[in-house]
Amino acid sequence: MPRVVMTAAKRTDRKEIGDVAMGLGADAGSAGIVRTKHVTFDQPSQELALEGGGTLAPFTVAFETYGKLSERKDNAILVTHALSGDAHVAGRHSANDQRPGWWDMMIGPGKGLDTDKYFVISSNVIGGCSGSTGPASENPATGRPYGTDFPIITIADMVNAQAMLLDHLGVEKLLAAVGGSMGGMQVLEWAVSHPGRVHLCLPLATAARQPTQAIAFNEVGRQAIMADPDWRGGHYYDGKPPAKGLSVARMVGHITYLSDEAMQEKFGRRLRDIHDYSFTFSADFEVESYLRHQGLSFTNRFDANTYLYITRALDYFDLTRRHGSLVQAFRDVTARFLVLAFSSDWLHPPYQLKEIVSALRATHKHVSYYEVESHYGHDAFLLEREKMEGIIGAFLASGARTFVPAS
Amino acid sequence: MPRVVMTAAKRTDRKEIGDVAMGLGADAGSAGIVRTKHVTFDQPSQELALEGGGTLAPFTVAFETYGKLSERKDNAILVTHALSGDAHVAGRHSANDQRPGWWDMMIGPGKGLDTDKYFVISSNVIGGCSGSTGPASENPATGRPYGTDFPIITIADMVNAQAMLLDHLGVEKLLAAVGGSMGGMQVLEWAVSHPGRVHLCLPLATAARQPTQAIAFNEVGRQAIMADPDWRGGHYYDGKPPAKGLSVARMVGHITYLSDEAMQEKFGRRLRDIHDYSFTFSADFEVESYLRHQGLSFTNRFDANTYLYITRALDYFDLTRRHGSLVQAFRDVTARFLVLAFSSDWLHPPYQLKEIVSALRATHKHVSYYEVESHYGHDAFLLEREKMEGIIGAFLASGARTFVPAS
Repeated sequence: MPRVVMTAAKRTDRKEIGDVAMGLGADAGSAGIVRTKHVTFDQPSQELALEGGGTLAPFTVAFETYGKLSERKDNAILVTHALSGDAHVAGRHSANDQRPGWWDMMIGPGKGLDTDKYFVISSNVIGGCSGSTGPASENPATGRPYGTDFPIITIADMVNAQAMLLDHLGVEKLLAAVGGSMGGMQVLEWAVSHPGRVHLCLPLATAARQPTQAIAFNEVGRQAIMADPDWRGGHYYDGKPPAKGLSVARMVGHITYLSDEAMQEKFGRRLRDIHDYSFTFSADFEVESYLRHQGLSFTNRFDANTYLYITRALDYFDLTRRHGSLVQAFRDVTARFLVLAFSSDWLHPPYQLKEIVSALRATHKHVSYYEVESHYGHDAFLLEREKMEGIIGAFLASGARTFVPAS
Repeated sequence: MPRVVMTAAKRTDRKEIGDVAMGLGADAGSAGIVRTKHVTFDQPSQELALEGGGTLAPFTVAFETYGKLSERKDNAILVTHALSGDAHVAGRHSANDQRPGWWDMMIGPGKGLDTDKYFVISSNVIGGCSGSTGPASENPATGRPYGTDFPIITIADMVNAQAMLLDHLGVEKLLAAVGGSMGGMQVLEWAVSHPGRVHLCLPLATAARQPTQAIAFNEVGRQAIMADPDWRGGHYYDGKPPAKGLSVARMVGHITYLSDEAMQEKFGRRLRDIHDYSFTFSADFEVESYLRHQGLSFTNRFDANTYLYITRALDYFDLTRRHGSLVQAFRDVTARFLVLAFSSDWLHPPYQLKEIVSALRATHKHVSYYEVESHYGHDAFLLEREKMEGIIGAFLASGARTFVPAS
């Protein structure tokens, strides 16, 4: 009981101090100071067999954990990240760290993924550029960075690497897997490929197969990167990275994460620091300046080759491919689902989430569906704390009661 | 009476022979063999005063006409083009020409814009690259192409140049101005800036001010072009053009012209000439191959600097800017309006057309609104002949009866 009161107090604090999620306030409800850990799988038995053929070996997975694994090992939740995410999903890396993890609003004591109850695990996907092995990593065959000699990886490969991380952490079966966008695809893949290892699945703002329009936008991003002469066929690590191409890729991606309405509201046609048009090609409009900034700042933290590999993994994702149909793909699923769609998400509109729900229902699985009313577009899953927290928290708490961890 | 019968017969022919609009069949209903003409305004009194300051002089306008101007000069219709259009709106340039004008489906004997009745005029906008003066034209000050020394032009500037073309053709007052997308913006500008010179206005798939999301996509295109080292600050006419940048710009633009549904239907996740993923960055998906082709073929017919200038003109378009509000902007309008929206157009969704309609109604103008049910997206105005032809034809015929040409 006291804990509940404390939790409520924490939430109130959080509201009073304002924008904790932006790293501007005190840290009530924070997962605290965390650090990214690394595990390298380098034993002969630890090769990662890839869906496209061949193996990845050795390989490293960067990960973080929050909260404590219970003795019964029945409280582990895996959080999977989207295209530009990483293992740092909650807390801060130092006391002065201005930027908490990317889903800090949802993870911490008393939050939706309550670290007083749950052991939360997050890892950077393979192919990534934030600590896990990817195209910028050293190719053991040459001693130089892989570049485009890195193998094409898929969502299933990412999930298989996560499964090895769980083995390493001694987690046989997850209470839950949670993720939005590409993270949601990983959650679906967990349910389908490792049905015995996950009890609850929460795919948010995602699809069971990458839709055509999303492939199209990704292809624009890839072409922008590959058109940059600094890309040099992907072997640029000894020189300048293809920053201009990556910046254009990020700009176009970013537009797809926001709704028409949110852009209109956030920027409208407002000019930036000027009273009238400049009649030049400068960034007259706030939205131009914002996008240029988003593009540029992305190049400081992200690798262009990883952008190519991860968008390819997204575009290749199609649960019907190996199974004929979605209903077939879900046949052996044992997990219970909470599927969340966001009303103004036009990258993965609600109809794509409903397709998942229909197929699960057709094969008599436990599934709840909820459409969150939001004008934030695809990014809503990163922003709508108030609207998601209760639903997700209740689903986890209720699901925990039916969970039988592996023996 | 015989003419009506003949027209009906023609339409039947057209249906039987199939895809005339794609240039694959015989030419029943065609505007026939046409040629692009040019008029150069080079007199001291013919300088074009630009909205952004300064003048353009001398300048040339490329244009085509179809049908015959009546003696009363009461049958002239101006058709205005969109971003990538030109003066060649109907007919063919030679007997073997495989590609008729861009709105050939709507213009010709017996068609919606019936050239047995109307004198149809179309011109390439200034700033364009299809015959009218633009950044690739010779700068009289240097004897070399303008490049980015070309002045920023606006929709109002384009319309003022068209007004001078009408003077040249002896057309004091238009029966109608018709156009989609950027063409629709020109139609709106005609109504507002030259209220005495146009009787009927038909803006299709457009907006009274460029919306934020459209500015954002255009800015991606501009950044892609300017990131191409071949762009060289816009002075590339003595060397290689920035084809890769322009290609990326076209790809992203193209996605915005199609609906999610149309892309899904047209391409889905179909692979191209392969049975399984290649596990490379090749164009595995048909949609990738299609976009690459669209991008590449565009670079063969379009100038990258024109892309910059015209998207800037689009983004600067805002009828409320000079007038405070849309209602104020429409105050002196005398034209009667037919406003057409297309249900799946997400670049200019119906709400943007309804904004125009509401403002016109608020100031008691004649306005009809029609939302065409279509899954083609923004491109619908270039494709939905059957659904538009009757509505447009009837509006023109009825409007012609109330038209009093200028004395």
